[in-house]
Amino acid sequence: MKTLHVDLGARSYPIHIGSGLLDRPELYADRLRGRQVLIVTNVTVAPLYLERVRAALEDGHEVESLVLPDGEAYKTLQTLETVFDALMELRFNRRCTLAALGGGVIGDLTGFAAACFQRGVDFVQIPTTLLAQVDSSVGGKTGVNHPRGKNMIGAFHQPRLVLADTDTLDTLDDRQLRAGLAEVIKYGLIRDAAFFDWLEAHLEALLAREPGALAHAIEVSCRTKAAIVAEDEREAGTRALLNLGHTFGHAIETGTGYGTWLHGEAVAAGMVLAAHLSERLGWLPAATVARIERLLERAGLPVTPPRGMGVEDFLGHMAVDKKAVDTGLRLVLLRGIGEAVLTQDFTSEQLRATLDRALAGA
Amino acid sequence: MKTLHVDLGARSYPIHIGSGLLDRPELYADRLRGRQVLIVTNVTVAPLYLERVRAALEDGHEVESLVLPDGEAYKTLQTLETVFDALMELRFNRRCTLAALGGGVIGDLTGFAAACFQRGVDFVQIPTTLLAQVDSSVGGKTGVNHPRGKNMIGAFHQPRLVLADTDTLDTLDDRQLRAGLAEVIKYGLIRDAAFFDWLEAHLEALLAREPGALAHAIEVSCRTKAAIVAEDEREAGTRALLNLGHTFGHAIETGTGYGTWLHGEAVAAGMVLAAHLSERLGWLPAATVARIERLLERAGLPVTPPRGMGVEDFLGHMAVDKKAVDTGLRLVLLRGIGEAVLTQDFTSEQLRATLDRALAGA
Repeated sequence: MKTLHVDLGARSYPIHIGSGLLDRPELYADRLRGRQVLIVTNVTVAPLYLERVRAALEDGHEVESLVLPDGEAYKTLQTLETVFDALMELRFNRRCTLAALGGGVIGDLTGFAAACFQRGVDFVQIPTTLLAQVDSSVGGKTGVNHPRGKNMIGAFHQPRLVLADTDTLDTLDDRQLRAGLAEVIKYGLIRDAAFFDWLEAHLEALLAREPGALAHAIEVSCRTKAAIVAEDEREAGTRALLNLGHTFGHAIETGTGYGTWLHGEAVAAGMVLAAHLSERLGWLPAATVARIERLLERAGLPVTPPRGMGVEDFLGHMAVDKKAVDTGLRLVLLRGIGEAVLTQDFTSEQLRATLDRALAGA
Repeated sequence: MKTLHVDLGARSYPIHIGSGLLDRPELYADRLRGRQVLIVTNVTVAPLYLERVRAALEDGHEVESLVLPDGEAYKTLQTLETVFDALMELRFNRRCTLAALGGGVIGDLTGFAAACFQRGVDFVQIPTTLLAQVDSSVGGKTGVNHPRGKNMIGAFHQPRLVLADTDTLDTLDDRQLRAGLAEVIKYGLIRDAAFFDWLEAHLEALLAREPGALAHAIEVSCRTKAAIVAEDEREAGTRALLNLGHTFGHAIETGTGYGTWLHGEAVAAGMVLAAHLSERLGWLPAATVARIERLLERAGLPVTPPRGMGVEDFLGHMAVDKKAVDTGLRLVLLRGIGEAVLTQDFTSEQLRATLDRALAGA
């Protein structure tokens, strides 16, 4: 087991990464402050891991569970309300803890419920997808989608613990694994060229789920994420770099209907769009763009936007994205592999031309 | 105009109290950071003040408004969703500001919407009821009700500005004015015996809406609130004293259906229950309890719980109140006028006996 730390003063917390962690009561025990625990999970994950987590928590805690439907389409205020209903029904108090057992949807939704219930209770993240283990479970971004925009309603609320049991990836379907790899590749692109090289060399091992390769990829990803979050918890600066591909990606997710494309798939296509716009600005040579596309393609990820979306669809959804501020749309672009920048140094014509060309190829 | 400050480091903000403040653009201007402003108000307040506030804000800002139904019954997740819908429809970005124009319901709901929209945007409080001016607009407690419990879903999110225009109290109906006086009296009870004396001497002036008396009462109340919030923003200790009468009061509000009793009315009856329990513990002489009841009665406030609620109704609702923690129910009780304490030093029998006696007299 490797343990990393997100260093946020009194709100610091550990990330444990390794095999067989779900069953270890001592990993939870010293991070839980109250007696009541509600495990929130979904219909896919519950049959696999709910009882194991419950057993590990049961000693010394009153453990209840709530099983939600699976998928991005359920990351809504309506589902959030069912979590509140359960907490009220169970008469949970402000010293309770919510445990998010599942992927990014469960983690984001459960974390947001914890942020709001009685104006804030504890929560722990037990991510069971690669995407959640390398990205969404770390850093305290929580929330739900609005029909018109992804993650538009939410809070910054840090977990008390992240427990990434790599064994859970054994039950992940291939499509989910690949979606997670999009976020892993993102870390290489934004600030770790050596890791990008390593990913090029070890992609087959990752796709074959070799435990050593997966553990290394998760650890490097979490280390980068933890460092960036410690530096800029509320996304005043650096943290925005983690949104590489996300403004385009959120437009794809909203435009195609939540759950049609997986988040990681949309981010993959979004990163390619960011690379193309960077190329158009003369920041990235065509060969580097091709290298990025090739790695994503090898990972089985989409490198073109969805058929059926037009330039105006993209621009409409992108204008409501959180990266848009009074002064105009800002995007994370690339000045090289491992060198992402948040910038407004592009014209709307350049953005349109980039989308036009990509959509023509879709 | 008097200006007080809530001292919270980078999140400090002014409270302006006085006559004719709504129309003064300069009071808003230096506290608004973005260009977009959404004024959230209700059908009662909009015809009276919306255009004046809009006019004061319009110079330099894009001002929109949303008019909600009036009343505690609408302080719900469903109403919150209509605020998000409006913000998305208007394509408001993360640099926008929400302006809460109204009483406690509008302030709590709008503040919570601001806390969650794009994970947190600015908001300002323009309270138009006595209760909101002396209590709910200051301190950053925001939220909505759950059908089973008052204020169960919310966030701590500080406003950028509180603008208490005392002229707005001219249009307040008597019942609302009296409900506000309950919270004013509360400040005397919890830590300002001299203010309690002053209230006894000036209650008729307050009921007659003498501007000097009202302004003094608002200023003293806000000064106490600001000091307590600065000391304990997240209610780890002292701030809980502000909940005198509220655990009983929330049980009344939830038990009778939100909006049947006004919040201040429920708090008045709740403070009397707290005084009775304090008397039963030997902490408060009967004469002091009578003095408290007399002042509340003179203010036209209820001093007995609602007919129709039983002891079990109270205990059921109180158990889910936020003041209940793992270790049992804690209540704010009185050791004297101006001397409130948060305590568990009572037995459930003493609590039951207090409720029994009060309900027999209801």
